[in-house]
Amino acid sequence: MIIVMKPEATVEDLNAVKDKIKNSGLDYHLSQGSSRVIVGVIGDKKKIATLQMNSFSGVEKTVSITEKYKLVSREFKKEDSVIDIDGVKIGGGHFAVMAGPCSVESREQLLEAAKAVKACGAQFLRGGAFKPRTSPYDFQGLGVEGLKMMRSVADEVGLKVVTEIVNINDLDTICQYADMLQIGARNMQNFQLLKDVGFTKKPVLLKRGLSATISEWLNAAEYIASGGNYNIVLCERGIRTYETFTRNTLDLSAVAAVKELSHLPIIVDPSHGTGRWQMVRPMARAAVAAGADGLMIEVHPHPEVALSDGDQSLKPDNFKIVMDEVNQILKLMGKTL
Amino acid sequence: MIIVMKPEATVEDLNAVKDKIKNSGLDYHLSQGSSRVIVGVIGDKKKIATLQMNSFSGVEKTVSITEKYKLVSREFKKEDSVIDIDGVKIGGGHFAVMAGPCSVESREQLLEAAKAVKACGAQFLRGGAFKPRTSPYDFQGLGVEGLKMMRSVADEVGLKVVTEIVNINDLDTICQYADMLQIGARNMQNFQLLKDVGFTKKPVLLKRGLSATISEWLNAAEYIASGGNYNIVLCERGIRTYETFTRNTLDLSAVAAVKELSHLPIIVDPSHGTGRWQMVRPMARAAVAAGADGLMIEVHPHPEVALSDGDQSLKPDNFKIVMDEVNQILKLMGKTL
Amino acid sequence: MIIVMKPEATVEDLNAVKDKIKNSGLDYHLSQGSSRVIVGVIGDKKKIATLQMNSFSGVEKTVSITEKYKLVSREFKKEDSVIDIDGVKIGGGHFAVMAGPCSVESREQLLEAAKAVKACGAQFLRGGAFKPRTSPYDFQGLGVEGLKMMRSVADEVGLKVVTEIVNINDLDTICQYADMLQIGARNMQNFQLLKDVGFTKKPVLLKRGLSATISEWLNAAEYIASGGNYNIVLCERGIRTYETFTRNTLDLSAVAAVKELSHLPIIVDPSHGTGRWQMVRPMARAAVAAGADGLMIEVHPHPEVALSDGDQSLKPDNFKIVMDEVNQILKLMGKTL
Amino acid sequence: MIIVMKPEATVEDLNAVKDKIKNSGLDYHLSQGSSRVIVGVIGDKKKIATLQMNSFSGVEKTVSITEKYKLVSREFKKEDSVIDIDGVKIGGGHFAVMAGPCSVESREQLLEAAKAVKACGAQFLRGGAFKPRTSPYDFQGLGVEGLKMMRSVADEVGLKVVTEIVNINDLDTICQYADMLQIGARNMQNFQLLKDVGFTKKPVLLKRGLSATISEWLNAAEYIASGGNYNIVLCERGIRTYETFTRNTLDLSAVAAVKELSHLPIIVDPSHGTGRWQMVRPMARAAVAAGADGLMIEVHPHPEVALSDGDQSLKPDNFKIVMDEVNQILKLMGKTL
Repeated sequence: MIIVMKPEATVEDLNAVKDKIKNSGLDYHLSQGSSRVIVGVIGDKKKIATLQMNSFSGVEKTVSITEKYKLVSREFKKEDSVIDIDGVKIGGGHFAVMAGPCSVESREQLLEAAKAVKACGAQFLRGGAFKPRTSPYDFQGLGVEGLKMMRSVADEVGLKVVTEIVNINDLDTICQYADMLQIGARNMQNFQLLKDVGFTKKPVLLKRGLSATISEWLNAAEYIASGGNYNIVLCERGIRTYETFTRNTLDLSAVAAVKELSHLPIIVDPSHGTGRWQMVRPMARAAVAAGADGLMIEVHPHPEVALSDGDQSLKPDNFKIVMDEVNQILKLMGKTL
Repeated sequence: MIIVMKPEATVEDLNAVKDKIKNSGLDYHLSQGSSRVIVGVIGDKKKIATLQMNSFSGVEKTVSITEKYKLVSREFKKEDSVIDIDGVKIGGGHFAVMAGPCSVESREQLLEAAKAVKACGAQFLRGGAFKPRTSPYDFQGLGVEGLKMMRSVADEVGLKVVTEIVNINDLDTICQYADMLQIGARNMQNFQLLKDVGFTKKPVLLKRGLSATISEWLNAAEYIASGGNYNIVLCERGIRTYETFTRNTLDLSAVAAVKELSHLPIIVDPSHGTGRWQMVRPMARAAVAAGADGLMIEVHPHPEVALSDGDQSLKPDNFKIVMDEVNQILKLMGKTL
Repeated sequence: MIIVMKPEATVEDLNAVKDKIKNSGLDYHLSQGSSRVIVGVIGDKKKIATLQMNSFSGVEKTVSITEKYKLVSREFKKEDSVIDIDGVKIGGGHFAVMAGPCSVESREQLLEAAKAVKACGAQFLRGGAFKPRTSPYDFQGLGVEGLKMMRSVADEVGLKVVTEIVNINDLDTICQYADMLQIGARNMQNFQLLKDVGFTKKPVLLKRGLSATISEWLNAAEYIASGGNYNIVLCERGIRTYETFTRNTLDLSAVAAVKELSHLPIIVDPSHGTGRWQMVRPMARAAVAAGADGLMIEVHPHPEVALSDGDQSLKPDNFKIVMDEVNQILKLMGKTL
Repeated sequence: MIIVMKPEATVEDLNAVKDKIKNSGLDYHLSQGSSRVIVGVIGDKKKIATLQMNSFSGVEKTVSITEKYKLVSREFKKEDSVIDIDGVKIGGGHFAVMAGPCSVESREQLLEAAKAVKACGAQFLRGGAFKPRTSPYDFQGLGVEGLKMMRSVADEVGLKVVTEIVNINDLDTICQYADMLQIGARNMQNFQLLKDVGFTKKPVLLKRGLSATISEWLNAAEYIASGGNYNIVLCERGIRTYETFTRNTLDLSAVAAVKELSHLPIIVDPSHGTGRWQMVRPMARAAVAAGADGLMIEVHPHPEVALSDGDQSLKPDNFKIVMDEVNQILKLMGKTL
């Protein structure tokens, strides 16, 4: 941490700052600039993280030098992590596709979708049994019934199951039926959920929060890792901006940023990222070209009767086109589906 | 809902749209514009809310006409709601001040803060026992021990207790010690928490999410109300924007907006809203002038040793100045503390 | 400037950085942290401003310590600036109100508006003769004809004239008719316009850009000041965020921030800031309570026939109510209209 | 336009609305919903654009159905526009690369950069002679001297010249030396500049404003087109969001959106879009895969001595790698450089 003193700071002000640092078990280094004294704080990262210096008299501002997350950082581990979900790998050259309907609505719907996405090369069946919805009057999901359907259909077709957890009390139940737990954008800073999931070994798909910085996102991942669970895959799904043509603004530069800052794999969800099915195709291609390790795409056999997010769901034939193009770019990227 | 058809939409496209509406138990009204057909959907609000029309061929876009929330809307109830928290009222001319440290750290700290805020006229002691923190290495709060301290100190001094709930499994425990439950910004769309809290009768302080629209915020309140709990107070605490000088951008126009759209009381938190203790004073004044029904302010006897948010905490003597100014403006507004 | 070296930076990397600093006529100070070397650059602010170090091998990031603006900073001048516009003062306890229609439409409309706002205590007639409009098909203003009307009506009624300049070639003409030049949000970084206006002595009202940081805004003011024109008044008019209920998000904390960072007066425009006439009243009150030095408000005798921004214009009787409330809060703030 | 009346609107309110519509030379269509009357306004798009209905008593809100821009819309012209810049085509399968330094600094620097980018396949030399800079103390460009250097170097090497115009009075001079005029992000709504450029036939590169919606951007293009100049190429260069790791958030979904809404070509600037040279490579690939018609990339032979934007400039050898990868993806997209 760097502490910038005000030009008018007194010797007394500076001494109080020095004392606070020493008393916190840390050390400092002074640098006299042309108009201001700069205090560099040296020592244990975790101790520095708890220092609160802006309320001291004479302090103009403080600047963080290092990030608080550690286990998920590229600095901690140089090589790409490869997450193995019961035989299907993500990261380090392994590309994964998760596809299926937004919500599980019926066994017929799910089976039709599952067969279609399997035929195009997807390895995971996605689908919501417990749905976080903006309004209490929106469809809330089939619950455990939906989970069972997903497991049974996935087994029949030969897919893995990834589904969202919204209630910490459902953890055991969902772990029983799913191969991978999804933590949705609205729960990215539901720290209790992160902690609880961190105590399992279950692979986790951690979506970026609606307005989360990349730093906050990696700190959320650190919650899971610090509990002992390193099986984390990140998912960029669009951030909230002023633009209204798209439902969110898909931040593909986050893929490159995460690759620089962390060893964790990162996939992209162009369906939620844009909210418009017409844009899924170009954005899926772009995500692969940007270096993503996978895709999550909403596919519904009949979007016009979907109970949620039909506007952004692809029909199976369009999904096939997307997968063909994705495969061509994957070859250039030296990755395998 | 209004459905705008593309200029090139066919009769077949339009018929499919009409059929879907009819089959959903709804009715429609056609309007032929200069280049497009506009379809107005008529009928039950909840049925309309589940219609998904953008995936239909020939549809250009859809526009919502009414909001999904109902119970918390001004349309549903014209007069201001007054929330009574064990004798202390908020709303309809009653102004409330909630003050205290960010985190409960020790009995001594809490007692000193409580006495100071009580002396200045605050009715509530605020303080975090369970803290949602960005990094797992930040101070996480004293837990139940902290709750007990709050209750005991508040009783000793004569204050009500408001504290944050972050884990649905703590609901009974917190209800036992606190007079009002706070749902923090990061949990505003933790729908399970909203539902569970909605099944109690405990007063709830619902903070606006970091990037929540006013509409999403009122829908979150609707989750609580639809469970049967109408004792809801909203709290504006700053939204996320591109500006970095302040921690958040305090959106005081949300006060006026909520007054127009809803009958619920709304208070303002200038401490989190700005992240700088120097700005709490002018923003507290502005909040009152904007029409807020209360304030939530961080007060710490010794901010320079605070374990969290010391940068935005007022010392007791500054809090006194704020309260004096607030009282003067309250008189002009015809409200009483 | 602080340069943070990567943990893996070599001695060679560090030497290249040191050489660059020395060769730029600057000095440095090294600080060895637990994992990284921190290089503090010392010397002339303007030289530091031109250093570009992120492209050097081994550099992790750079952090600016001081702002680039100087003449407009509070550090440069401690006491509040008072801007005198031909006898009407703004700043340092002097409060000013600028009111009138969005666009000048006709002499009758303008005269009716001018009389109304004068009667309520406004000192300035605002109105657009040259309008920056999103679409080329929107009303573009009456041009010089409008300017002449403003001058004539203002003289008749006893008001000063403030109007927007959008074309540098109109500078002389507008200076001839107006008492104060407005630079609109869309031109806040039209640097040529800032420079040209800086070479006059004409008082300038500099609106904040739609997505300008406070730092960028003050740097824009510095352009004007560095040309020799210190007669600058800032105007907060709402920033662009994700919220759609309001046209912009009025950032009243910018008032407090500017007061801390600069000696320039700052006024607030709640009409553009909210885009809804119903919200002008509470936001005007809040602006005064936040410490603003003035208000700019759209008043139109007949908003329903306005050629622009009728949605956010007050009728004269509502403006009277606003002014009465503003006056009461001004008294508390120790300011005079 | 759709006008939504309040549930409590009176017959008188509705009549006033009807009269206003009729008196504006337009027609309407009423639709009685379950709780509200909806008024659909029918008639000439330009007349509707000037209607201001929110200030009418009983009106809850208004909703626009169509965009104001026309000439640049896909609805107006179905097939992709191909812009021919003195023999080099952009759009409709023709891909163009514009590369070079941020600022023109010296003939040596420029020539070295020009030879390097030409060797890699770029067709345009980019470079700033007139620079819009945040601070008046930053390097402002070499002016006309820089323009001449660009022309001379480009002719020597065999490239076209694209450069930014910031002052309308420089229009003739720049037209003399450059093949294409760039309108920068900060001037996207400098409407006078748009109009003046619209009266020439010079090809224009219109960058998206820092916080411009896609609709505002296309309206800015409409300003140019409505003057008679159809030679417009759009350029996505990142938008302003809350994320600070990148300088801007590159919105690649804007490429897909523009392709849907307009017939104009669109290129991408990953250098400004990210502000980090390390991210240019993945984002350039992603832009091509998203369907962009070209790239604008900062290349500097020695970024560590650049007078501006060295942090985001590629060295020639890295640019070569980028171009190799871009070419591979271009083949898949069926486009030619």
